Amino acid sequence: MTQLPDCLYCRKDQRLSDLMIEVAPLQVSTLYLFKEQTYRGRCVVAYHEHVNELYELPDTELARFMQDVTRAARAMKAAFNPAKINYGAYSDKLPHLHVHLVPKYTDGPSWGTTFTMMPEPKRLHSEDVYAGLIAQIKAALV
Amino acid sequence: MTQLPDCLYCRKDQRLSDLMIEVAPLQVSTLYLFKEQTYRGRCVVAYHEHVNELYELPDTELARFMQDVTRAARAMKAAFNPAKINYGAYSDKLPHLHVHLVPKYTDGPSWGTTFTMMPEPKRLHSEDVYAGLIAQIKAALV
Repeated sequence: MTQLPDCLYCRKDQRLSDLMIEVAPLQVSTLYLFKEQTYRGRCVVAYHEHVNELYELPDTELARFMQDVTRAARAMKAAFNPAKINYGAYSDKLPHLHVHLVPKYTDGPSWGTTFTMMPEPKRLHSEDVYAGLIAQIKAALV
Repeated sequence: MTQLPDCLYCRKDQRLSDLMIEVAPLQVSTLYLFKEQTYRGRCVVAYHEHVNELYELPDTELARFMQDVTRAARAMKAAFNPAKINYGAYSDKLPHLHVHLVPKYTDGPSWGTTFTMMPEPKRLHSEDVYAGLIAQIKAALV
């Protein structure tokens, strides 16, 4: 049996579910709703394999991953109508390729600057709020 | 005569040259060295047309743009050997698609967190330092 790396995206364990909720599988990745919702509709797209750097992907795989990222972004735009979507891939210490997709609103937090990774880490949301956001994204995921 | 948008990436005027220096044209974009060099080797890849959102690009064009981004990242890795490269596309108020490529070092600033857009905006570097960095990237751009 192949041992999975000790990585939350590979093991999909509680470390993952503490941070995000699965919305839908995409071509070569999974779309998650990020639980920290200071930026309404914020999501993560995580690649399906344990690869660290975007530049490690062969061109055809890179194209498919970015199609997943833009498909998710289009759905977020349709669902929540942000003024702009921000994209960030950092993962200095979590070597598994994932992109943060962060909707920005002209009257909302961090407009005109970079988003904050964890603006209010203790913030609580009800399961109903998450379910509602997920339903909106799924309905817009074409 | 077509009027260019009042955009620094389209007009390539002093607003651009205050912030960055051209390294090389790529397939559908231009690679620039960012003058603020707190993160050694930091660059920008700017798309060649005045498009705002990544998801506005048709799939073939998206693939070519991301090939440019990863080609630049590979060159930065080869030139400076950072532990990780961060990627950020924000542009809430500057509607022209560009990606910040920020090398991160385990003993350097912001390791393990998001990079800062303008950590030391007044920082001065000599033209020689910029020329040296550009030469290293160009030599590694395969």
